[in-house]
Parts: sequence; C-alpha cells; structure tokens
Amino acid sequence: MAAEANGETTGHRDVFVSVYPRLKSELLEDPAFEFTDDARQWVEKMLDYNVPGGKLNRGLSVVDSYELLMPGKTLDEHEIFLACVLGWCIEWLQAYFLVLDDIMDGSITRRGQACWYKVEKVGLIATNDGIILRNHIPRMLRKHFREKPYYVDLLDLFNEVEFQTASGQMLDLITTHEGEKDLAKYTYPVYRRIVQYKTAYYSFYLPVACALLMAGENLDNFIEVKNILIDMGTYFQIQDDYLDCYGLPETIGKVGTDIEDFKCSWLVVQALERASEEQKKVLYEHYGKSKAADVAKVKELYNELNLEAVYHEYVAMIYQKLTSLIESLPSESVQAVLQAFLKKIHNREK
Amino acid sequence: MAAEANGETTGHRDVFVSVYPRLKSELLEDPAFEFTDDARQWVEKMLDYNVPGGKLNRGLSVVDSYELLMPGKTLDEHEIFLACVLGWCIEWLQAYFLVLDDIMDGSITRRGQACWYKVEKVGLIATNDGIILRNHIPRMLRKHFREKPYYVDLLDLFNEVEFQTASGQMLDLITTHEGEKDLAKYTYPVYRRIVQYKTAYYSFYLPVACALLMAGENLDNFIEVKNILIDMGTYFQIQDDYLDCYGLPETIGKVGTDIEDFKCSWLVVQALERASEEQKKVLYEHYGKSKAADVAKVKELYNELNLEAVYHEYVAMIYQKLTSLIESLPSESVQAVLQAFLKKIHNREK
Repeated sequence: MAAEANGETTGHRDVFVSVYPRLKSELLEDPAFEFTDDARQWVEKMLDYNVPGGKLNRGLSVVDSYELLMPGKTLDEHEIFLACVLGWCIEWLQAYFLVLDDIMDGSITRRGQACWYKVEKVGLIATNDGIILRNHIPRMLRKHFREKPYYVDLLDLFNEVEFQTASGQMLDLITTHEGEKDLAKYTYPVYRRIVQYKTAYYSFYLPVACALLMAGENLDNFIEVKNILIDMGTYFQIQDDYLDCYGLPETIGKVGTDIEDFKCSWLVVQALERASEEQKKVLYEHYGKSKAADVAKVKELYNELNLEAVYHEYVAMIYQKLTSLIESLPSESVQAVLQAFLKKIHNREK
Repeated sequence: MAAEANGETTGHRDVFVSVYPRLKSELLEDPAFEFTDDARQWVEKMLDYNVPGGKLNRGLSVVDSYELLMPGKTLDEHEIFLACVLGWCIEWLQAYFLVLDDIMDGSITRRGQACWYKVEKVGLIATNDGIILRNHIPRMLRKHFREKPYYVDLLDLFNEVEFQTASGQMLDLITTHEGEKDLAKYTYPVYRRIVQYKTAYYSFYLPVACALLMAGENLDNFIEVKNILIDMGTYFQIQDDYLDCYGLPETIGKVGTDIEDFKCSWLVVQALERASEEQKKVLYEHYGKSKAADVAKVKELYNELNLEAVYHEYVAMIYQKLTSLIESLPSESVQAVLQAFLKKIHNREK
C-alpha cells in the first residue's frame, strides 16, 4: 500500500486509479462475446470517455469504508483490490446513469467535455453504450466474486439499488412534467422521495453496503445504517440545490440553472411552503423561464423569504440529528464509517 | 391445466397470459420503491403498452420446454406458474430491447401501434422506461426464485445473455455505420456474429436454458445444446432477412425495407460474395437508398445471382444439419425440446 496519507481516509486513490486499466482489459477480453477490432476499439474509447473522469468519491468510499470496518487488521493487496473492484462497479453504474440522463435531458456538456451522445459518430448509439456500461457490472462481479459466500447478495444489492435509482429518475421525470403544468406538485414529500431514490441509495448507501458485505455482514442487520445514509444523501442533495443558487460559480465549477430548468429544487419547495398567495403568483409567473429578469424575480423572492437562513437552520438541525444517530449505533467501526462520510460532506462549498 | 391442446406444444397460452396481471400487480406494489399514484399509473400504462402485445413465442417456449424436459411427470400448478414467470422475464427483456432499439433506429411503429417513445408525453422518458423494464426482471426473479438452489444461476444467465445481446446490438450499430462508408464490411463472419449475439442467445438459448435450470440441470453440461440453439437462431434470422425481400407483405404483416435501410442482411452478404466487379458496382450504387428505382436495381441483381435458390440450398443444408445434431444428443427429452423448436421455425412463411 504505497498510497500517501493525506489526513483524510482517502489514501487509496492511487491504488484505486491503477485498478481501472486492469478491469478495462478484462472486459475487452470477455470470452462471452467475440469482439471484432472495431468493437473493441469502440468500447475502449467509450469507457475511457465516460468512466474514469469523475471525482471517484463513490468508488473510493468503498475502499475507505471497508478499511474502517476492519480495525486492527492490515488488509492484504488482494482484499484492497476487491474493494476497488466494487468501487469501480459503482463508478460504472454512475457512468451508465449519466450517459442516459444526458440524452434524456438534452444536456450539452458533462465533466468539462461534450456529453458522450454529442460526440461525433456516437449519437443515439450512446443509448446502447449506456446498456453496455450497465452490463459490465455483473461481468466484473462474476469474474472476481463468484466464489465468495456473499456473491448472490452483491447481485441482489446492485439490482435493488439500480431499480431504486431508475424509479427515482422516473419520479423526477414525471413530476417535472406535471410540475410544468402545476407548480403546486413540488411538495417536500415528493422532493424527499425523488432525492432518496434517485441519488441517496446509489451514492451513499451502496458504497457502505458493498463494504459491509465484504466484511461478512448481513445487510438485514443494518437498516438503521441505511436510514442514516439515506438522510445523509438527502442532506447532500439539499446542499447541491442550495449551492446551485447561492454557491460561487468559480467555486462550484458551473453556473446554476435550476430555476431556468424548472427543477424540483429544495429551494422552490421551501419557497412554496412559505409564500403568501401574492408571492406564489410571482413563482408561478417567473419560475422555469430562461430570461435573466425572470430568474432575478425568483431569486428576489427567495431572499424575501429568507431561504438562506432556512437552509442554515436545516443544516444545523440535520448535522445534530445525524451526529446523535451515528453515536447511538452499537458498532464503533460502523460509527467511524458514517462519521467519515459526514465529515466529507458537512459544510462543503462545492 | 385447463388450456386446450392445439396439436402443438403450446397448450399453455391461456395460463401464460393469465400470469401477466399478477406479475404486474406485484411490481406495482414492490416495497423497494415508494410509488406515488402518478408513478404507479405511469408504470402500469408503460407495461401494458410494451410487454404483452407480442407473439409471446419466447415466453411460451420456456413452459413448453420445461414440460418436455419432465416426461412422465405431471407438473403442478406452482411449477407451471414458475415457468411462466421465467417466460415473462424473457418477454420483459424483449420489451426492454425493443423500446430502446426503436429510439436508436428512429422507428415509427411497432406491433401495429406507435413506438412507445412516439406516444404523447413519453418522448425520451422512454429511455428510462426501458431501464425500468430491465430492472423488473431481477425483481421478479428475486420474488419467486430467491430460495431455489438455481437462483444465482438464473441471475448469471440473464446477466450474460443481456450482455451478449447488447454487444451484438453494438456490433450491428457500428457495422452499419462503417458499412455506409464501405459496403465491403458486410461479410458473412460479421453477419453471423451480429445475429448470434443480438438475436440467437436471448430468443433461442435463453428460454431453453431457463427450462434446464428449473429441471435441476447444470448449464455447463449443455454446451452442445447451446450451439444447436445458436445455429437455429441464426437460421431464424436468415429466414427473416429472406422474407423481408421475398415474403408476401400480406403474409409477413409488413413491407420489408432492409435494402432501403442499408441493413447488413443475409441477402446482401450473399450477393457480395457472389457478385462480379461489375455487379458489385450496382450494389455500391443502389444499396441503402430509398427510391423505388434503386431498390428495384438491387432486387434485380439478387435475381440475377439466383439468391432464392441459394436460400433454398441453405435451408435444406441447415435443416439436415440441425436434425442430425439433435439426433446425436444423449437425452431424448432434450431432443424433444429442440425438435419442437425446429418444427416451429422450419419452412415458416411469416
């Protein structure tokens, strides 16, 4: 383990990154398909374009969590490698969702480059490439975990989480459709459900669940841990929504467009809960329009309603709640896993 | 078993059809997702639109094959039900592929109605609906097979076959891309590979493999059966390609457009193998164009090259080959399964 410590628990980045080319080679030599040279080149280019270019937080947190779950034990190279494989499976899952989401949303750029479907000669072939990305996950799991006692649990876990994510995405898509006709559809219960299913399961629960399975645990005994991670994922998305409007573009790396895009954002949900009839009319008239004057009207209203203060109150409350829930857990190593997660996201500005 | 016999082995159609609403209800009550009323209505409409409207051949053949694999045993209601569930999983898989293929191909109609993505208010949400269809398969498998000793084999089987189908679809998409620049890319080895992976695995091997697993068999012992089914699936696709040009529109239920669409069809592959330099020029000039005059030129060349006779020679050869391969198998019940398949497709005119 030559990775340098950096004060956080993410000392595995170098090892993690080095596992990617090995997994790619294995997939390009998968005996279940007879590759032509063209097909192999296509898949390699598609993987390099879509899989490794993110922040890798989800993938790395499998390795970090696994290490924290095994205190006092020095993990050997192969155990670290296996945790990296599961981490990359989550990165593959993420790539699959992003490739398809960009098509559905008609997005232009992603991670500082053109969306895959916008690349020359790709177009809607990107839909099938998304499917290929998704299919790579069970190929990797089978190759490296088939003999493990928890192999079937891994398959069930990835299947369930993918189902939940796709269901959350569906809820988001149909809610935005309905919301465009009637903004009143954007309520907190609907918001919470979209976020929980679309983001929290795969970004927060899945990495820890993978680490728990590797540590030999039965996931049925970790419902409370799951609930805490779902709450944390919801907090994370609320931060995202807040920063979209109040973050510094130079810090968050993009100019937020949730207002223009008619998004079911935490801010508009809070505004609708607090607005007078008069103020609601302002939202109904100006939300979801791309002109700067409309956006300004909405932001003005957010300020009138003091949403910045509402957000900071929420942050203080949820941090307190999560901290005490974590402290009430019986296992210290599990506490350490969740504390590491919470530390990573709390008070982030990007 | 109240289904009427009809001389063939498909006496289970009524039972099979009656299982669909039960599976649908279970999926709409899946506790892994908190449905809203809108979401439940959306999924129900999407399922009814896309899943049950096909010929159901693939699904029914699971039940038929399972029965033939258990000669002398009267299957009880629950065993038949489980075979139906696996059959419906294949129909779900088919629906998933068709919904996404139609988007990628820009198709207009499917099974006598508008393609799902062409339906009002659906559009590219259909991409996510395809994903939902795909995710329903492991939900159904888990609900009904989790306790079976062959549960993990079922998961592996569906994962491998989906990977192969998506890989075949990729090969088809990139070959057609390259073929549009250079028709010479359409060779028989490329054609065989596309058909084998894109169609034969999921349409021919998968139903029999499901039945074998239910019968308690280890699929590693059935490589020869797999190869025969792949050959049969290839034969089936060659029939399809032949009928697209030579079938009667009133019989096959559509007007073929493979020539206009620049398809890597068995006919153009055969033509390229047999054409003189002079005749190749005709193909290069007129293949893949939508004008009737271009299509007529191509068909004229097919007639000059006597492709009808080439086809009938192929049919005689493959029928002979398949029959003797089947007869050489050790198990009579497996022979019966394969003979039933062969009987269904041989000499079909639609």
